Amino acid sequence: MATVGKSDWNFCSDNVAPVAPEILAAMGQANQGNISSYGEDPWTEALTQDLRRIFEKPDLIAFPVATGTAANALAVSTMVPPYGGIICTEDAHINTDECGAPEFFSGGAKLLSVPSPDSRLSPAQITARVQAAREHGVHVVQPHAVSITQSTEWGAVYGLDQLRAIGDVAASHKLGLHMDGARFANALVHIGCSPAEMTWKAGMTSLSFGATKNGAMAAEAVIFFNPAQARGFAERRKRAAHLWSKQRFMSAQLLAYLKDDLWLRNARHANAVAQIFAHGLAAIPGVRLLHEVQANEAFVVLPEGVVAALEGEGFGFYRWHADTAPGEVAIRLVTSYASAPEAAQALVSAAARFGNR
Amino acid sequence: MATVGKSDWNFCSDNVAPVAPEILAAMGQANQGNISSYGEDPWTEALTQDLRRIFEKPDLIAFPVATGTAANALAVSTMVPPYGGIICTEDAHINTDECGAPEFFSGGAKLLSVPSPDSRLSPAQITARVQAAREHGVHVVQPHAVSITQSTEWGAVYGLDQLRAIGDVAASHKLGLHMDGARFANALVHIGCSPAEMTWKAGMTSLSFGATKNGAMAAEAVIFFNPAQARGFAERRKRAAHLWSKQRFMSAQLLAYLKDDLWLRNARHANAVAQIFAHGLAAIPGVRLLHEVQANEAFVVLPEGVVAALEGEGFGFYRWHADTAPGEVAIRLVTSYASAPEAAQALVSAAARFGNR
Amino acid sequence: MATVGKSDWNFCSDNVAPVAPEILAAMGQANQGNISSYGEDPWTEALTQDLRRIFEKPDLIAFPVATGTAANALAVSTMVPPYGGIICTEDAHINTDECGAPEFFSGGAKLLSVPSPDSRLSPAQITARVQAAREHGVHVVQPHAVSITQSTEWGAVYGLDQLRAIGDVAASHKLGLHMDGARFANALVHIGCSPAEMTWKAGMTSLSFGATKNGAMAAEAVIFFNPAQARGFAERRKRAAHLWSKQRFMSAQLLAYLKDDLWLRNARHANAVAQIFAHGLAAIPGVRLLHEVQANEAFVVLPEGVVAALEGEGFGFYRWHADTAPGEVAIRLVTSYASAPEAAQALVSAAARFGNR
Amino acid sequence: MATVGKSDWNFCSDNVAPVAPEILAAMGQANQGNISSYGEDPWTEALTQDLRRIFEKPDLIAFPVATGTAANALAVSTMVPPYGGIICTEDAHINTDECGAPEFFSGGAKLLSVPSPDSRLSPAQITARVQAAREHGVHVVQPHAVSITQSTEWGAVYGLDQLRAIGDVAASHKLGLHMDGARFANALVHIGCSPAEMTWKAGMTSLSFGATKNGAMAAEAVIFFNPAQARGFAERRKRAAHLWSKQRFMSAQLLAYLKDDLWLRNARHANAVAQIFAHGLAAIPGVRLLHEVQANEAFVVLPEGVVAALEGEGFGFYRWHADTAPGEVAIRLVTSYASAPEAAQALVSAAARFGNR
Repeated sequence: MATVGKSDWNFCSDNVAPVAPEILAAMGQANQGNISSYGEDPWTEALTQDLRRIFEKPDLIAFPVATGTAANALAVSTMVPPYGGIICTEDAHINTDECGAPEFFSGGAKLLSVPSPDSRLSPAQITARVQAAREHGVHVVQPHAVSITQSTEWGAVYGLDQLRAIGDVAASHKLGLHMDGARFANALVHIGCSPAEMTWKAGMTSLSFGATKNGAMAAEAVIFFNPAQARGFAERRKRAAHLWSKQRFMSAQLLAYLKDDLWLRNARHANAVAQIFAHGLAAIPGVRLLHEVQANEAFVVLPEGVVAALEGEGFGFYRWHADTAPGEVAIRLVTSYASAPEAAQALVSAAARFGNR
Repeated sequence: MATVGKSDWNFCSDNVAPVAPEILAAMGQANQGNISSYGEDPWTEALTQDLRRIFEKPDLIAFPVATGTAANALAVSTMVPPYGGIICTEDAHINTDECGAPEFFSGGAKLLSVPSPDSRLSPAQITARVQAAREHGVHVVQPHAVSITQSTEWGAVYGLDQLRAIGDVAASHKLGLHMDGARFANALVHIGCSPAEMTWKAGMTSLSFGATKNGAMAAEAVIFFNPAQARGFAERRKRAAHLWSKQRFMSAQLLAYLKDDLWLRNARHANAVAQIFAHGLAAIPGVRLLHEVQANEAFVVLPEGVVAALEGEGFGFYRWHADTAPGEVAIRLVTSYASAPEAAQALVSAAARFGNR
Repeated sequence: MATVGKSDWNFCSDNVAPVAPEILAAMGQANQGNISSYGEDPWTEALTQDLRRIFEKPDLIAFPVATGTAANALAVSTMVPPYGGIICTEDAHINTDECGAPEFFSGGAKLLSVPSPDSRLSPAQITARVQAAREHGVHVVQPHAVSITQSTEWGAVYGLDQLRAIGDVAASHKLGLHMDGARFANALVHIGCSPAEMTWKAGMTSLSFGATKNGAMAAEAVIFFNPAQARGFAERRKRAAHLWSKQRFMSAQLLAYLKDDLWLRNARHANAVAQIFAHGLAAIPGVRLLHEVQANEAFVVLPEGVVAALEGEGFGFYRWHADTAPGEVAIRLVTSYASAPEAAQALVSAAARFGNR
Repeated sequence: MATVGKSDWNFCSDNVAPVAPEILAAMGQANQGNISSYGEDPWTEALTQDLRRIFEKPDLIAFPVATGTAANALAVSTMVPPYGGIICTEDAHINTDECGAPEFFSGGAKLLSVPSPDSRLSPAQITARVQAAREHGVHVVQPHAVSITQSTEWGAVYGLDQLRAIGDVAASHKLGLHMDGARFANALVHIGCSPAEMTWKAGMTSLSFGATKNGAMAAEAVIFFNPAQARGFAERRKRAAHLWSKQRFMSAQLLAYLKDDLWLRNARHANAVAQIFAHGLAAIPGVRLLHEVQANEAFVVLPEGVVAALEGEGFGFYRWHADTAPGEVAIRLVTSYASAPEAAQALVSAAARFGNR
């Protein structure tokens, strides 16, 4: 295992990974000559065509941006007025990890967050929140949109039935529905459905189609399935300084990401490595999973001594906030397209070893 | 001249150019293993050290971002409260080409623009604007900062004396002073001074240090020369979604840009090609320069027939708004590090040929 | 003239006046018992009915607010997205005297100002501004609305033909059209037309219907002539803290303002007193009007010594920025419903006396 | 009891009350002659002096505004940057009843709300929230201020010890501390302490000093106890359109409110009437108070049939969200300076009568 070094032992996040070789190569191939700037280039045009084909939606509109936070914040800002609200879970990335970007981009819209153990939102929570607001009229912030994360911040994957139920309830209250798909591919290959089924066929208005966590350098696409609902997005992106002059290099990443199913292959790899954690760690006495591992994240509760020993050994991961018993610690392990199965296995073996002491 | 094709004839902007090979190579070299994300990487740390050395300011703080608009808007938003104003010229990029990004990032601050033929601001204009506002107190938006562009949107370069005079007047009115350096290197090599002389020694508070137009893919650095004045910048950048998770690839661009004076060599090349336009076109009867060519932009007035013929031949450039006589048209020609001198010469020769018809 | 004291010599603004007795009395009459708050009261309902009758528009929607700046800023914020622009004159109140309120309420929209000697905007200026923006697409702030002031900040009154021409050009470019009617009544009685003719029949989308400068304490109404265009206004007003809990006292002011044509009588009085200035001062050698006096403001150029002598005598007015010859000073004189004709005559007489020295 | 009619039976809120006669009279007395506008008047100056005396703080700065929402939103926007957060309770008025005004005025700051049964915040909750945020750096919104309500939205009154403990913990984390004093007087007379003890001596940075709910028409004062911390407030108020031109009429309200302890007498009356509810209703079998009645609000749980009967009889109050058993309903009863004790007694008697059926 000579090639598996400390760098491979880093499971802090899927964004610690390098760029997938196919994607870096594509950026090099795009580096030919002078080309019209600001998205007036063949790569950007081709990307839209590819996404329309893959999502089976010939009129969708897509806007590449460099970061997941940009994708989310721009998407929701297009869907909610400054005086409106966005229903999401308390642990939603937009609520906890974007330093207020949705509030900023929307001009001060309010995140109306509700609790959820695995960060999946339920239709009943949406309805309850809407009804409570409707009763009080102009005094309270009225919900205008819902944002869900697939897979969620706790590694859970909404089933198609769950998505459709949310889509129905959102439509019934005339709410836009946004999916934060920072780990879209990981959820998709878990379910094994089509991109269309997991999005517009289930009622999504817009999607943050993530690629950075799954092999790109800095590239996501915001997709609106109904072009009329994207009104103002182009202006918002420019005004937020997220339109590159050399935009071809962003689109080239996404084209390579989609080519030959690289995105699906990468996600399958990451999910498979996460299963090494799921099965290996759960088998250790005194260790348990906080949630079923469905995508590429494992949340695991271990004895504090084991966690400390793993850290001392050089494994990289975050301790995570969760209700645990005294002497226990929850950790988050995230795998990526680049994760070495041997490194995951090494962590499992070390944990078993430390657990047996 | 077989290698000079239509792509080389594109003088629309310096951002139509590809990425400098040295910079692309550096990005590839950064693509090794898992690395801490969000700027906690060695490249970002090394970049700060390099900038401190180059600017002879051991305590400056630098924040890489992907676009010039992000650099400008984030810089001014840190320098002016939402209820304040920023003095700039009418043709300033922040006023005309950023879709309101400074207003967005600042929470609604107002650009207080004044006319200038070559987009250089004068100390007297700053003072006049401040005095008019101070008289009316709370009813009018009070200036809190000044933003100048070096080289300007009309290709002019402020001399050191001019910069120092602006620095003095800004300080005397307690105004922050920002320099939009999208073409910083082009101005610097024109003057032949040190980066320190052109910035903090002349009174600049902050600098948008551009690299994208001079060879990078998507990389600029916002520099605050006094760290106390950068308060809140890190939060603003994150919140504006301009902190990359794989930030190493942004910092790697800038490191390569600075290495072995690549940035200065690239700028000298671009400026030299612009001189081909300056001398070649000015020598044609009926053709004149709108302004002296000092950096990498030439604004030229030609007979309309000549302009149309050049366009028909396949040369790329923009017609520009300027007061011209009937039958005349102003155009903008921009050169980059990648501009082929042969292509510039070809345009000059064609213009001469068309002019003689 | 014993009753005309120094307080009556104050022509600084029409907002230095007290509250019209009829309006103050109406507020007292509204002070009866407990009443539903936040606009769910009979006065507010009656006000809407009155405005619908007076404007001959049975479906208009009206929102009372306490200040003219609130009226203007809320109106334009409803008509333009954060990334859009509002065409107005350089001297428009929204551009110069509201401390950036339109930018704040709109979330950073940009005021696209054009010069005008008497602050009247021309259809050609609107078209030019729109065309320049449309050419540059997403890079520049696109106009979404026009705002004009009737009567203007220089006391000029748009004729009906001028208003209709602006209405036509705004409609042709799909721009909303807002009228700042802080001195609406003064303009209306000058023209002698109906409120409908001066507003929606000429193409206005919305109106800031001023009352404070013409006798109210703190009351204006924002009127949308097409209810669909008021979408979100109620939320914006609440969120901007401009919905009073004891809203009846705002509506009661406006009801009294409209009752028995008080508003028209007050405006006629103010305009008539302004004519004392117009005729009296213009007749003095060495004194001239900057603009024809049409409403209740006179802009007059006098020898500096005369101005200083008037100030020394205790007359109140502002020196105004205008291009004047050396030794001359421009002043602004504003009359209100409460202005004493004797006081205006006293100023004229004093000026004549000082001018003859 | 002929004078107690249906209007007196309205206990929906203290803002359904009319204006106290003393205050209305003072507004009439201020209606004399032309006076400098925008707060440059003797009433506004006198108000500052009165507040400095009453709060025993000779350098405090006060800004009158018309609504409680304006007071709160302007205060917190001065205390927190757009990228910062404000710790408050989930039921805080700023979080639930201002349609997002704090978010709007602050440019998108985030309300970091924590649960509390009676809407009192604890020092431990503040510390926990700060520590959780500090750990995650730039990714999460960092708390910059705390806002508490005295008396709270559930009618509870913080004791001086509790206030001082919050003041200490806020200072230790370098957080500003704002008090929403919409019902300041009601809390003050309950405690029986001095205004200074309940505010700056306990660590408050700023106070929304309410008057509207206690007898004024539309008047509150934002007070900063340290003038340096009010930086930018004047500009923010103007820009938010909350500076009246005829500001004397706002200041006159507050002067009359403070004169001869009217504010304290009014609050004592309201609190005393609330005690009629507290004692009278609690004595009815099957009825209980949700919280001790300390100020002028009673939250009471009654059998649903009794509530419906009271509504049918014509009593005015709101059903309130609370965890109640099946067949029970919680209601809120609010008393004001103008509440008739006979009306409160009538409600109690009716409830007893209906309860006995």
